[in-house]
Amino acid sequence: MALKKKPVTGMRDILPAEMQVRDYVMDQIRRTYQSFGFTQIETPCVEHIENLTSKQGGDNEKLIFKILKRGEKLNLETAQEEGDLTDSGLRYDLTLPLSRYYANNAAQLASPFKALQMGNVWRADRPQKGRFRQFMQCDIDILGDASNMAEIELILATTSALGRICPDNAFMVRINDRGILRAMALHCGFPEDGLEHVFITLDKMDKIGEDGVRQELLADGFAPESVERYLELLSGAGDDAAGVRRLGETLSGVLPKTAGGLTSTENLAQIMETVSGVAVTDFRLCFDPTLVRGMSYYTGTIFEVSMEGFGGSVAGGGRYDRMIGKFTGIDTPACGFSIGFERIVTILMDQKQSAAVTVPKKAYLIEKGMDAKRLGEIMKQAMAERAGGAQVLVSQMNKNKKFQKEQLGKEGYTEFVEFYREALK
Amino acid sequence: MALKKKPVTGMRDILPAEMQVRDYVMDQIRRTYQSFGFTQIETPCVEHIENLTSKQGGDNEKLIFKILKRGEKLNLETAQEEGDLTDSGLRYDLTLPLSRYYANNAAQLASPFKALQMGNVWRADRPQKGRFRQFMQCDIDILGDASNMAEIELILATTSALGRICPDNAFMVRINDRGILRAMALHCGFPEDGLEHVFITLDKMDKIGEDGVRQELLADGFAPESVERYLELLSGAGDDAAGVRRLGETLSGVLPKTAGGLTSTENLAQIMETVSGVAVTDFRLCFDPTLVRGMSYYTGTIFEVSMEGFGGSVAGGGRYDRMIGKFTGIDTPACGFSIGFERIVTILMDQKQSAAVTVPKKAYLIEKGMDAKRLGEIMKQAMAERAGGAQVLVSQMNKNKKFQKEQLGKEGYTEFVEFYREALK
Repeated sequence: MALKKKPVTGMRDILPAEMQVRDYVMDQIRRTYQSFGFTQIETPCVEHIENLTSKQGGDNEKLIFKILKRGEKLNLETAQEEGDLTDSGLRYDLTLPLSRYYANNAAQLASPFKALQMGNVWRADRPQKGRFRQFMQCDIDILGDASNMAEIELILATTSALGRICPDNAFMVRINDRGILRAMALHCGFPEDGLEHVFITLDKMDKIGEDGVRQELLADGFAPESVERYLELLSGAGDDAAGVRRLGETLSGVLPKTAGGLTSTENLAQIMETVSGVAVTDFRLCFDPTLVRGMSYYTGTIFEVSMEGFGGSVAGGGRYDRMIGKFTGIDTPACGFSIGFERIVTILMDQKQSAAVTVPKKAYLIEKGMDAKRLGEIMKQAMAERAGGAQVLVSQMNKNKKFQKEQLGKEGYTEFVEFYREALK
Repeated sequence: MALKKKPVTGMRDILPAEMQVRDYVMDQIRRTYQSFGFTQIETPCVEHIENLTSKQGGDNEKLIFKILKRGEKLNLETAQEEGDLTDSGLRYDLTLPLSRYYANNAAQLASPFKALQMGNVWRADRPQKGRFRQFMQCDIDILGDASNMAEIELILATTSALGRICPDNAFMVRINDRGILRAMALHCGFPEDGLEHVFITLDKMDKIGEDGVRQELLADGFAPESVERYLELLSGAGDDAAGVRRLGETLSGVLPKTAGGLTSTENLAQIMETVSGVAVTDFRLCFDPTLVRGMSYYTGTIFEVSMEGFGGSVAGGGRYDRMIGKFTGIDTPACGFSIGFERIVTILMDQKQSAAVTVPKKAYLIEKGMDAKRLGEIMKQAMAERAGGAQVLVSQMNKNKKFQKEQLGKEGYTEFVEFYREALK
């Protein structure tokens, strides 16, 4: 009976060398976030289909792996549509399950609640290089804190983690606020009902450039005057806290206030100043008025981290004050930051950083047919070395010793001790 | 829009206190097994339905969560049976995926290959107390080693891990061999085609007792003479290596030989002597001729660990030399040991062992409306403490400060620093 050897489409086996890197990254993330008082939690990988399809997940809702109802509930004969066959699915992110978790357990959790989640999520994306249908997400979230202390802590924690994981890579945090984004567009005369459209176009800035954005907005029928004014405002904005405050003066009148009673710009300027003044990790923090971030659930601050020499972002997040209320009926301020775990692992693998190999790895190779008494002595020696902190593999010695050592070398073994039944001649 | 707050049937949210224990157990397991040279690997949680239903999984195959085919492949109109709707499912154990993994990647792995897996598995069991439909398994396996060095290493590694995790609980390893099991029954005159039946009954020994086993065997129509002889042989066997060797003399003629050329009893006696002579952890190791273990894939040695004061087993495993060959077409000796992760966590939670809390946990509580400059100073102080190894939570101060501290106390916070905007009056 031949069984299928390959993993299912779009998913993959993780080999030892990559697993070491993943383990190292997870460990650094866990340690760093715990030092900031984030509490690790876990939710089931399987979620109610009603929750997964509640419009919180945007396009991800099209990519759900749905699970067949069990037993009697599955009436294949009368089933008319997919919905009759399924009542659950694999989670496509960790934010929706966190909202459900908080709604379910709030009474037993500290408030504000600082959560750390590391777990797999599943999306039935079209398989392509570097994109997999099962991948790890790594999120921190602060629930129940409306003040910008949440943003400050999230940015400090995530940049600390990134700084530890990739000490040799320069990185940059870009920050914006959905309120500022709206105010800038309104200020330039775009109509309220056209804003979503404007932001979708703006979000392509890094791909199509300023000229591309101009043409797309004009093609969509927006007033040329608004478009020019907008592009000027965007390119003229300073990228530091002072620039944000100047922009605040320009926009005064259309700017919303945060729950803390500050204007969006003053709020953002304070976040930037405090983070810059406090951070112990070296990175660039700048205001980016073109930063949009796709998910519709963001309500305030948004941020994204990019790493020098690598396209795309390595982390991102923002404030989403209205999502938890969908479960609980009680509005709960929330803000989160997600590290692009798979991306970071890829970067480290590309750099061939032999992360985390701090313990010496030693292999005992034992000739076949060793008598039991001597084997016992050898094992005793291995146990003593392990007790002393070493990593000792005890293995039979293969006929092709050279190949065996090469394979072990790939796993990081640098020391080999060979045991023979009798003296070699 | 009200969403569902509870997890899906039979699965659960893991709260911070339990998560700490889980994290501690995982960490101890990972460290211990790594010191023995086991290499962590990971397989997708989703497996081909063909593999999951290939009769390797026994009753677990009835409990599979099946996943709907995606997109065009799902032809609801023409679907006649479940098989038309699904091409994958959630894994019900880690052994089947390991076999597929090894078949798929053997050329890139060391031989023998020592694998460590920690991951969730899913079984649609009827929900009941303490049993969940998603749970963690934690397995080590040695693939490609036919000698009893594999068994010795597995037992040493697992008992070392258990000794570290539960240093205050005495435990016992019971060991047997499928070959001895067969030889004993054949020796007593049971017919070859009745053996499976005999073992199913024998497996109930701890529930129904010797008398129960006798009655069931007689009721099944086995010769009274065979039954009596069998029960006498079982109860008369010594539980140490010497006892195993004496049994070997009794059974000589019907005993199979292992791949290493030893009789099953001599092989087992050597395992017992070597483990006892080498182990640095304190535990009892004994031969148990009534140990059966359910899974049909075991071919040789089998073992099980029980912990004093807790019913059932906390770990178990054995040799399964014919499973990998189902994938590869090439017989590959294999032996594994699985720690009952959820069971261990339950035991630790019951004992209220505040595991792993080695770092002091400190919470900064900050009055609302703190000005940005002073907030920056406070955060700087927190960052300095974190850099020094402390765990510092920075949180807004709630109106009900007492309740807030109690909730944080549940998470292990024992030190609170309060920051006010101005001197308290």
